[in-house]
Amino acid sequence: MKFARFKKQTEETVLQGIVTENGIKQIEGDIFSDWKYTDIIHNMEELEILAPLTPRHVIGIGANYVGKIDDLPSVLPDIPVFFYKPISSVIGSGKPIVIPSTVEEVKFESELAAVIGKRARNISEEEVTDYIFGYTVANDVTAPQFFHEAGHWMVGKSFDTFTPLGPYIETELNPDEIKVEAYLNGDKKQDSTTTLMIVSMRKMIAYLSSVMTLEPGDVILTGSPLGAEMMKGGDEIICEIAEIGGLRNPVKQG
Amino acid sequence: MKFARFKKQTEETVLQGIVTENGIKQIEGDIFSDWKYTDIIHNMEELEILAPLTPRHVIGIGANYVGKIDDLPSVLPDIPVFFYKPISSVIGSGKPIVIPSTVEEVKFESELAAVIGKRARNISEEEVTDYIFGYTVANDVTAPQFFHEAGHWMVGKSFDTFTPLGPYIETELNPDEIKVEAYLNGDKKQDSTTTLMIVSMRKMIAYLSSVMTLEPGDVILTGSPLGAEMMKGGDEIICEIAEIGGLRNPVKQG
Repeated sequence: MKFARFKKQTEETVLQGIVTENGIKQIEGDIFSDWKYTDIIHNMEELEILAPLTPRHVIGIGANYVGKIDDLPSVLPDIPVFFYKPISSVIGSGKPIVIPSTVEEVKFESELAAVIGKRARNISEEEVTDYIFGYTVANDVTAPQFFHEAGHWMVGKSFDTFTPLGPYIETELNPDEIKVEAYLNGDKKQDSTTTLMIVSMRKMIAYLSSVMTLEPGDVILTGSPLGAEMMKGGDEIICEIAEIGGLRNPVKQG
Repeated sequence: MKFARFKKQTEETVLQGIVTENGIKQIEGDIFSDWKYTDIIHNMEELEILAPLTPRHVIGIGANYVGKIDDLPSVLPDIPVFFYKPISSVIGSGKPIVIPSTVEEVKFESELAAVIGKRARNISEEEVTDYIFGYTVANDVTAPQFFHEAGHWMVGKSFDTFTPLGPYIETELNPDEIKVEAYLNGDKKQDSTTTLMIVSMRKMIAYLSSVMTLEPGDVILTGSPLGAEMMKGGDEIICEIAEIGGLRNPVKQG
């Protein structure tokens, strides 16, 4: 089932719905607890698709893919490189990524993103998927020019528009062996499967839940495959997981 | 004016109010936009004081104080060391700070915290205080044992209970020359004034607003004076700014 958030192009009200072959069936309520269908179906062409949720937190992980199975390390890091992105950086599919005015290019990173659906504290790897509401695609846009030399990524990860999410949240995905792709101006640049993650999604979320209480709406970006490159004003980037959809954003110089 | 959030000890409903000599006058509405007094006054002794808000983001800054005015650098860093703390780490005055079970001590850091009250994007240093709703005290609890060797602080800053905030939000404070103190088991360990900040609060928030759109409820921790130490189970830490109040938390081994 694919959950969407959207607006009618002429109105400001944010609506929620389920994507069907005949359009988006509007729902009402809280997608994490109690929702129901309304009688309204919207025609896709008349809608502006928004990010499928306003996250509570966005948590990412650094350098989490290898190029081939043989390169997977036998010993995992004691402390994974986690970082936060602000919710002010979240945009939906279709909205422009804006490059900060003092630089000319920024990096795209196509990623599988897990949306937490239930409060999770000290959960085991085996339990992780029970706590996941669904999955979306993320573009972890990054301006490495703003990384601090002592290793702090906060500024380079935090600019407005730097976290495209979407287009939808798919609740029926098996996350263990799916393809994560990115297309820059139509050329395939990233093409990997989640089997090449160093710290698996299950390990990552179990670890996080040993540090902090995760809650519905927390979004975990699971890292980006090899092949991420820089993009500049005028480019178009599509991050894609076939089962979820294509997250398409034009790039604008700020 | 001091804004508080609280519960009656026997009830679950979260209430808001203004601290007065006669108790807390309950208010209703959104403290950032439209609120009004109710007819109810609560007796302090019957209340559990909560963190004065659930922040939208908590943003901190690293190593931002010198010991004396002469040590202030003439050139400021190009990129300040900013970091995020999760809202899951926020607790109020009176609640225990819980040390992760695998370590025996964690660090306290007493700080002035600014609460953003209006959407702020690309604001100047001179405008910053127009966008601040008020000020509270923060204890930026940190477990440096969980810092990543490549400089990432996320895990060490993110444990549940690691961000005591409170006791209140004071809206009538001049932030430019106030004392920031910390008392560990009654001994004064931090005792500084905000004039010893390297990146001033105004510079810090103006810079942040050039990166990201700040919104009401964003909380900016302005860094901790020299003198922060480790604390262990059984200790009590009070972070204090006289004009706001004392943020008092017992420490428990997890």
